[in-house]
Amino acid sequence: MKLSTVATAGRQTWGIVEGETFFDVGAALQSRYVDLKSAVAAGLEGVAAAKAAARSFALSELEWMPVIGNPDKILCVGLNYEMHRQETGRSVVENPTIFARYANSQTGHMAPIVRPRVSSDLDFEGELAIIIGKPGRYISRADAFSHVAGYSIYNDGSVRDFQRHTIQFTPGKNFPDTGAFGPWMMTPDELGDLAPLRIQTRLNGEVVQESTFEMMIFGIAHIIEYCSTFTRLEPGDVIATGTPGGVGAKRNPPLWMKPGDIVEVEIDRLGVLRNPIEQEA
Amino acid sequence: MKLSTVATAGRQTWGIVEGETFFDVGAALQSRYVDLKSAVAAGLEGVAAAKAAARSFALSELEWMPVIGNPDKILCVGLNYEMHRQETGRSVVENPTIFARYANSQTGHMAPIVRPRVSSDLDFEGELAIIIGKPGRYISRADAFSHVAGYSIYNDGSVRDFQRHTIQFTPGKNFPDTGAFGPWMMTPDELGDLAPLRIQTRLNGEVVQESTFEMMIFGIAHIIEYCSTFTRLEPGDVIATGTPGGVGAKRNPPLWMKPGDIVEVEIDRLGVLRNPIEQEA
Repeated sequence: MKLSTVATAGRQTWGIVEGETFFDVGAALQSRYVDLKSAVAAGLEGVAAAKAAARSFALSELEWMPVIGNPDKILCVGLNYEMHRQETGRSVVENPTIFARYANSQTGHMAPIVRPRVSSDLDFEGELAIIIGKPGRYISRADAFSHVAGYSIYNDGSVRDFQRHTIQFTPGKNFPDTGAFGPWMMTPDELGDLAPLRIQTRLNGEVVQESTFEMMIFGIAHIIEYCSTFTRLEPGDVIATGTPGGVGAKRNPPLWMKPGDIVEVEIDRLGVLRNPIEQEA
Repeated sequence: MKLSTVATAGRQTWGIVEGETFFDVGAALQSRYVDLKSAVAAGLEGVAAAKAAARSFALSELEWMPVIGNPDKILCVGLNYEMHRQETGRSVVENPTIFARYANSQTGHMAPIVRPRVSSDLDFEGELAIIIGKPGRYISRADAFSHVAGYSIYNDGSVRDFQRHTIQFTPGKNFPDTGAFGPWMMTPDELGDLAPLRIQTRLNGEVVQESTFEMMIFGIAHIIEYCSTFTRLEPGDVIATGTPGGVGAKRNPPLWMKPGDIVEVEIDRLGVLRNPIEQEA
């Protein structure tokens, strides 16, 4: 099942995507769930069954929103592919590198990623995102996958000069409209085995990052175990699992995203997250 | 005016503290404001006037909650006093060091700060907290103070081994019940000139940190300007402005907080934030 948060006919809703059709399950179940996050919190109970009675829209009628617009937490893993760790010159560490994004930095599929007026160092980071379903603390690796509601695509857009102002990444990772998240989350049963899946980032059609998930340094179960050690994971929490090598900042000369560019992150079977780059007004 | 979020008679509310009395303005204005954050967003309009009709409680009847329990963002400034920068061996930088706390890591005045079962390296960090009133992006230093709704006391409790697992502080700064915030926020008119005010942290009555705010490396206006460059500040957002020297991690031997300890952070005129340390069950 693929689930999206969208705006259509002037209101925000969520629902199921099948082929070129969106089923407005959010409207059908509005007395039960205020948004996709609350449906995720309820284990998506009744969601599939509500499709039959839901009004449908062509995907072309939709404005795509971040899959979860109001997560309690967005946890990001840094330096989680060996090629990226090496290009950044960072040391090998025994635990995942975790930094935070706030919800107000997100944007949806097809919506602009905004280059702020204070920087031209806007970089791409294609990533697999985990959406937490069942809450928990001290989750073991063995139990980790039972806490996953689904997977999605993230472009952890980074303003590199602000990221490097100090030793903490936070400023460079929180500019408004830089964290693209979509077009949908896919439930684990539909996505199947993650390890062999390929992730690819393209800038104006040219491949700039490519890997498979088996190249992750810390796997999904390890990441969930670690994060749930220091914080209670809540339904709708998002974990962006890190980006492969090839980021623009480490090229010579650097390759920055600029207004008019199109950036795409594709994950096998999951789909394509596409965003134009726009200059801040 | 001093404003607190509390639980009393089995429900959560907020109101005005004067001397030993709490006025339940939250109940009196419940049709206008769902919580203190929404009152802050409205510029505290009608709050002072509602005191006359509000039911009063003795402070001893209250359970203190984090002043703002549901901030959109908690931004923390690291290394913002020269003595602390030196004790950590970090470089001089041109911009504030910013990291993030999530709301679910907070606790109230008199409530326990919890030492997690995975670490004994629990450290204190007494800090001045800013509570944002008026939202904004690209706020100039000249305008910064017009965006401040009030000030409070923060103990940015830190789990040092997790903070040092990697180059990013996030895990060590987000354990549940480690960010103590209270007992109240004080409006700027009542607090007056901040620069000469003294901040002092005491562990079991012994002074372990002491400074005045004029010793900050980056002042409040500079911090607001910088943070609002990379994120839109919202009403109720909290900025913890950094801790003076003297943290437990940099003593020889290290001085960790342990179950049964009492930690206090006092700021002149503002008050005392007091927390017992408790072992996680």
